[in-house]
Amino acid sequence: MAKNVLIIGAGGVAQVTAHKLAQNASEFGALHIASRTQSKADDIIASVKAKGHQVEFTSHSVDAMDSKAVADLIRKIDANIVINVGSAFVNMTVLQGCIETGAAYLDTAIHEDPAKICETPPWYGNYEWKRREAVEKAGMTAILGVGFDPGVVNAYARLAEDEYFDKIESIDIVDINAGSHGRWFATNFDPEINFREFTGTVYAWQGGKWTENKMFEVGREWDLPVVGKRTAYLSGHDEVHSLSARYKDSDVRFWMGFGEHYINVFTVLQNLGLLSEQPVKTAEGLEVVPLKVVKAVLPDPASLAPDYEGKTCIGDLVKGTRDGKPGEVFIYNVADHKDAYNEVGSQGISYTAGVPPVAAAILVARGEWDVKKMVNVEDLPARPFLELLGKLGLPTRVIDATGDHPL
Amino acid sequence: MAKNVLIIGAGGVAQVTAHKLAQNASEFGALHIASRTQSKADDIIASVKAKGHQVEFTSHSVDAMDSKAVADLIRKIDANIVINVGSAFVNMTVLQGCIETGAAYLDTAIHEDPAKICETPPWYGNYEWKRREAVEKAGMTAILGVGFDPGVVNAYARLAEDEYFDKIESIDIVDINAGSHGRWFATNFDPEINFREFTGTVYAWQGGKWTENKMFEVGREWDLPVVGKRTAYLSGHDEVHSLSARYKDSDVRFWMGFGEHYINVFTVLQNLGLLSEQPVKTAEGLEVVPLKVVKAVLPDPASLAPDYEGKTCIGDLVKGTRDGKPGEVFIYNVADHKDAYNEVGSQGISYTAGVPPVAAAILVARGEWDVKKMVNVEDLPARPFLELLGKLGLPTRVIDATGDHPL
Repeated sequence: MAKNVLIIGAGGVAQVTAHKLAQNASEFGALHIASRTQSKADDIIASVKAKGHQVEFTSHSVDAMDSKAVADLIRKIDANIVINVGSAFVNMTVLQGCIETGAAYLDTAIHEDPAKICETPPWYGNYEWKRREAVEKAGMTAILGVGFDPGVVNAYARLAEDEYFDKIESIDIVDINAGSHGRWFATNFDPEINFREFTGTVYAWQGGKWTENKMFEVGREWDLPVVGKRTAYLSGHDEVHSLSARYKDSDVRFWMGFGEHYINVFTVLQNLGLLSEQPVKTAEGLEVVPLKVVKAVLPDPASLAPDYEGKTCIGDLVKGTRDGKPGEVFIYNVADHKDAYNEVGSQGISYTAGVPPVAAAILVARGEWDVKKMVNVEDLPARPFLELLGKLGLPTRVIDATGDHPL
Repeated sequence: MAKNVLIIGAGGVAQVTAHKLAQNASEFGALHIASRTQSKADDIIASVKAKGHQVEFTSHSVDAMDSKAVADLIRKIDANIVINVGSAFVNMTVLQGCIETGAAYLDTAIHEDPAKICETPPWYGNYEWKRREAVEKAGMTAILGVGFDPGVVNAYARLAEDEYFDKIESIDIVDINAGSHGRWFATNFDPEINFREFTGTVYAWQGGKWTENKMFEVGREWDLPVVGKRTAYLSGHDEVHSLSARYKDSDVRFWMGFGEHYINVFTVLQNLGLLSEQPVKTAEGLEVVPLKVVKAVLPDPASLAPDYEGKTCIGDLVKGTRDGKPGEVFIYNVADHKDAYNEVGSQGISYTAGVPPVAAAILVARGEWDVKKMVNVEDLPARPFLELLGKLGLPTRVIDATGDHPL
């Protein structure tokens, strides 16, 4: 029987996910989308309908921080697959709602506690992985971190493992956004989540242990396809916290590209204390979290889409040996902001994050990835996922000994 | 009979004013200080007592936005002179309390409405000057803007009028703080008031009319005594709004010195909308004024004092003619942050602002400046004020045709 899908969240990523689900409606049963603010979900459905999709798509209001409310909604609409693209603060309650009802659970980022930043690594160990047994006992499928990064880049690592090396020495994930939104400053996704990534310790997995740096302390120039020479900085990122478990004898690092302007704005806000997740008290006695005020004054990332131009390049440089012979491979995707906007009304960053959970949902619906346990993306066969992604608009390319070619 | 004095406010400037009043206690009767938070007033009195001053100094709690509460307090303690060094938002209610009771009123900045920035010039015309008749009718004295700038710089202009020129062509007020507080970033006085000065239109009086610029649009390099070559920018400032009335055939400009670091931080905050005095709503629905959050995360200006080093130079370059012969004079003061701290526990910016109202209070107490009407500083004879200021720690120097010499 066709599986009903429920999207949790109604931001920029949810919009992409909704469009992609609608484009692939024949793989699923009824489609649903739920958000704290139902009108945002309605807007997304309206944008899907405006593209001419004749699908059953229903909006709901839900407090995703309330696992019972989530479970009640899942039962009410008989959802079989839940795609959580809401805030990272709601992962554990949405997961719990799925455990209680047996619905498959997909998300695109690690759970976060609003009051904590950069907890002890591996971050998955603090939240999601503690529910592994509960998920297995419930006999349901939970696929963690199946956006682009984390997600597709984890599959790239797995592809290198499956098809290139018998021993992997290092996995360097590089994320370059060479696009331009034309605003004085904006973040490409939720400013709160965006800044929280960079205000704490930068964890990398090197030499078999966690290493610690500060943000912008370690920079390296990369020369990548399409986007050219760009400086990227060692950054903390979700996928390092699962890949380091599977590839514990390899170095695992994440590099994020930043321009000088972004770094300057970030540095000012950070040094002034305006990126703090801890409340301060104004002279008038109002308690307020500075980071939430910064979020309130910045452009809504979804609003950037119409003017966004240029391309992103995200990929894994994997080094290793096969039969004792050293080699390297760069597995990557290039996405175009304008193409994303024309197709689904979103910018490229939302597009790369919102399409992969739809590919995963299709594989779950088809049974290929319906593994009845909690996994990260690198725990699953990569090729079917990457081939499907190619059909959904995120083609994989590979630079190896034979040159630069499609997967 | 000796006149009782009431200070309104308990910030960095109030601390200086309190110490200077205590040093000159023989000029006055009982001393009082009132603040919304009485403990801040108590701290100031304790710092005065710690310097060994044997004075009657009493703290009070008052809501200075409530003119009746101010009037009640004035009556209760029989205050004859009120020195308002509280926030610029309370001027009109404190002035009203004085009008109702007949106490003399002194302040150091123009009244501001929290929700408005850079209103139609002249700013005095929007608030204080509307109460001129009421002040005259009440037979009391109101001396507006008697800090350093506005205040002493207005007296410098008057001195040039009295002793140098029969026709003044231009008055350029230059304010350079060449000191260093050792923090990554801080404002020298209330961040809210500090930033509000620079987020709106820069008004200058040139060619007989108001001209408008943006902040940091017009810069000029100055070469000043002690502090040397510094870039200062055409800025909006209170004194321009009264001097332009008395010297309406002259150009009146204010120049504030800024380093590149300050400009960068200001530009980032300004462009992001974090200096806005208008409330924004967070995703959680909390209404908050961004500027008040910026204020909450920045260092308390009073906390800068112990580490502050270096000097300030503030002066008026006045050009004009006498008997048809053109000339120019630079009238200025140099203050030292460390000296200020050693003397009264405050940094130099607070010192230069907090001492002048005490000089004015002495002149009112002696009757010399007890003019029974509302005036700005340039409306009063400058020499007695400047000579007294010299004795109180803010000596005036002059660069004229005869060289650089004390007043």
